[in-house]
Amino acid sequence: MHGPRHIPLGYGGEFDAISAALHRWGPLAAGVGDDCAVVEVPPGARLVLSVDNAVENVHFRRPWLTPEEIGYRSTMAAISDLAAMAAQPIGVAVALTLPERWRGDFLQLCDGIGDAARASGSRILGGDLSRGSELALGVTAIGHVTSPMSRRGARPGDAVWVTGRLGGPLLAVRAWERGGTPADDIRTRFARPVARVEEARWLVAHGATAGMDVSDGVASEAGHLAAAGSVRIVLDLDRLPAWAPATFDDAARSGEEYELLVTAPADLDAAAFASRFGIALTRIGVVEAPVPGAAPVEARIAGVRTDTPRGHDHFPRA
Amino acid sequence: MHGPRHIPLGYGGEFDAISAALHRWGPLAAGVGDDCAVVEVPPGARLVLSVDNAVENVHFRRPWLTPEEIGYRSTMAAISDLAAMAAQPIGVAVALTLPERWRGDFLQLCDGIGDAARASGSRILGGDLSRGSELALGVTAIGHVTSPMSRRGARPGDAVWVTGRLGGPLLAVRAWERGGTPADDIRTRFARPVARVEEARWLVAHGATAGMDVSDGVASEAGHLAAAGSVRIVLDLDRLPAWAPATFDDAARSGEEYELLVTAPADLDAAAFASRFGIALTRIGVVEAPVPGAAPVEARIAGVRTDTPRGHDHFPRA
Repeated sequence: MHGPRHIPLGYGGEFDAISAALHRWGPLAAGVGDDCAVVEVPPGARLVLSVDNAVENVHFRRPWLTPEEIGYRSTMAAISDLAAMAAQPIGVAVALTLPERWRGDFLQLCDGIGDAARASGSRILGGDLSRGSELALGVTAIGHVTSPMSRRGARPGDAVWVTGRLGGPLLAVRAWERGGTPADDIRTRFARPVARVEEARWLVAHGATAGMDVSDGVASEAGHLAAAGSVRIVLDLDRLPAWAPATFDDAARSGEEYELLVTAPADLDAAAFASRFGIALTRIGVVEAPVPGAAPVEARIAGVRTDTPRGHDHFPRA
Repeated sequence: MHGPRHIPLGYGGEFDAISAALHRWGPLAAGVGDDCAVVEVPPGARLVLSVDNAVENVHFRRPWLTPEEIGYRSTMAAISDLAAMAAQPIGVAVALTLPERWRGDFLQLCDGIGDAARASGSRILGGDLSRGSELALGVTAIGHVTSPMSRRGARPGDAVWVTGRLGGPLLAVRAWERGGTPADDIRTRFARPVARVEEARWLVAHGATAGMDVSDGVASEAGHLAAAGSVRIVLDLDRLPAWAPATFDDAARSGEEYELLVTAPADLDAAAFASRFGIALTRIGVVEAPVPGAAPVEARIAGVRTDTPRGHDHFPRA
């Protein structure tokens, strides 16, 4: 958090709160306290920046997650945008709106922010703390890149690949909305997503032609890659790697996965990827030349054309 | 705003809203639409980054300002942090939480954001749009700097200088809180602050030893410069350049001024500054060696010591 003057919380203890957060973050937040964070960008690299806004009852609900998890997840979502470009994270800054009823959770929120920064090789660059009526974390992540992964570049003949396993966030939200509790592994997928930072750089180094992170469902993201590359993408839904008990449709629609969807040569060494990163890299489709009048994304099950699943809004009525 | 997938507004028309904003911004927002904004940092320069969070009923109240003014003011506040370090703005990214009742004001908010970016030589780098229950703008501003202005560096014998005229924001808020309307010039000072970007670089080039922007009242900021520089600062309150009818005390306490408070040699050419920028540069005090046991900031009127005014929270009970 930069200068204490920037913290119009309006109730006592705000300086103490910031000091405690900085103490908790330790070297992770070295340099915070002046008007701006100062960052060195390696010569020849370009800076990339992304903003992700996580709002209570829109992106998460309080009973589902611990404050640490809310801080962690919001921060990792912004860092995933850097991974989507195969950028190396530098750090994050957080505009935190903190209602009075969340005041006692402040340090736990900070711990989660710190965990996500640490896990992705980022620093805490600064922030701004305000009161307000609902918890909101506006996270800015910056990084640097010399060989960016782009949404453009998919070529007919490429295969379509996805990292990890899909459907966890959708299953978790479904369980909570039905008044239940998700299984531990499914809950963890929602609460502790992992931005695929190193994985993205490996994929670019091994010939990925285009790619992005999966925020809004694989089928929907495939549409973005198809449009950006002026190609057609055919997805084999029965090849989607899924968490039980997700259906093919669940796996194709589940958003906020933060896995990577890339196009790359069909002979990509998935075994080497899996051995290096401990997660799967699965071939789930092919890139074709565009067909006038045909949909840019076609979905198949057992080789037979089916409806293309749409992206899923986890919180349609919040 | 980056990829439409990042906009879980949850009600129809969000793609249209973003498209309309991008259309409105035109070349100002060129390059927005991929996962991250990509920025070139000049060789040898360091990147600086700051975050400012503006929340409805905390930093502004709806009846006081037009949506354009809210967008403008929130954006300029973040840019002022760059000016505080004498950095050159590159661009801004906005995490916007937009309640349904503000939906019709979206493009006007964007116009204000765009105006502030344009006025300070910035681009729109991206953003994230969410629904929520109160309007909030988390603005990240980035810039680059080779010769930063720092809070540290004030030397005994320096003079203390301030740009512009003080007290306007305090007078404006006071008028509104009493149910009245501020005079036009006073209202404009609150609604349309100007970050002193070029002024800061001029001051550094002309020997400023330390400085910052005035977010929290001159007297309070003087305390920061005194602490950071391990010096004592004596302010002559009767020299403070003030908007009528602000008292000396008002001028010393008024925050969110976004003027610059700097320490610099006493022979700084204030006339050259005024002629170049069209605003005053006024000598308002001196830097002395620290006195053990004495307050780091002393205030005087007509050379006689008086109480040091404290920073003013414009919205203590919001």
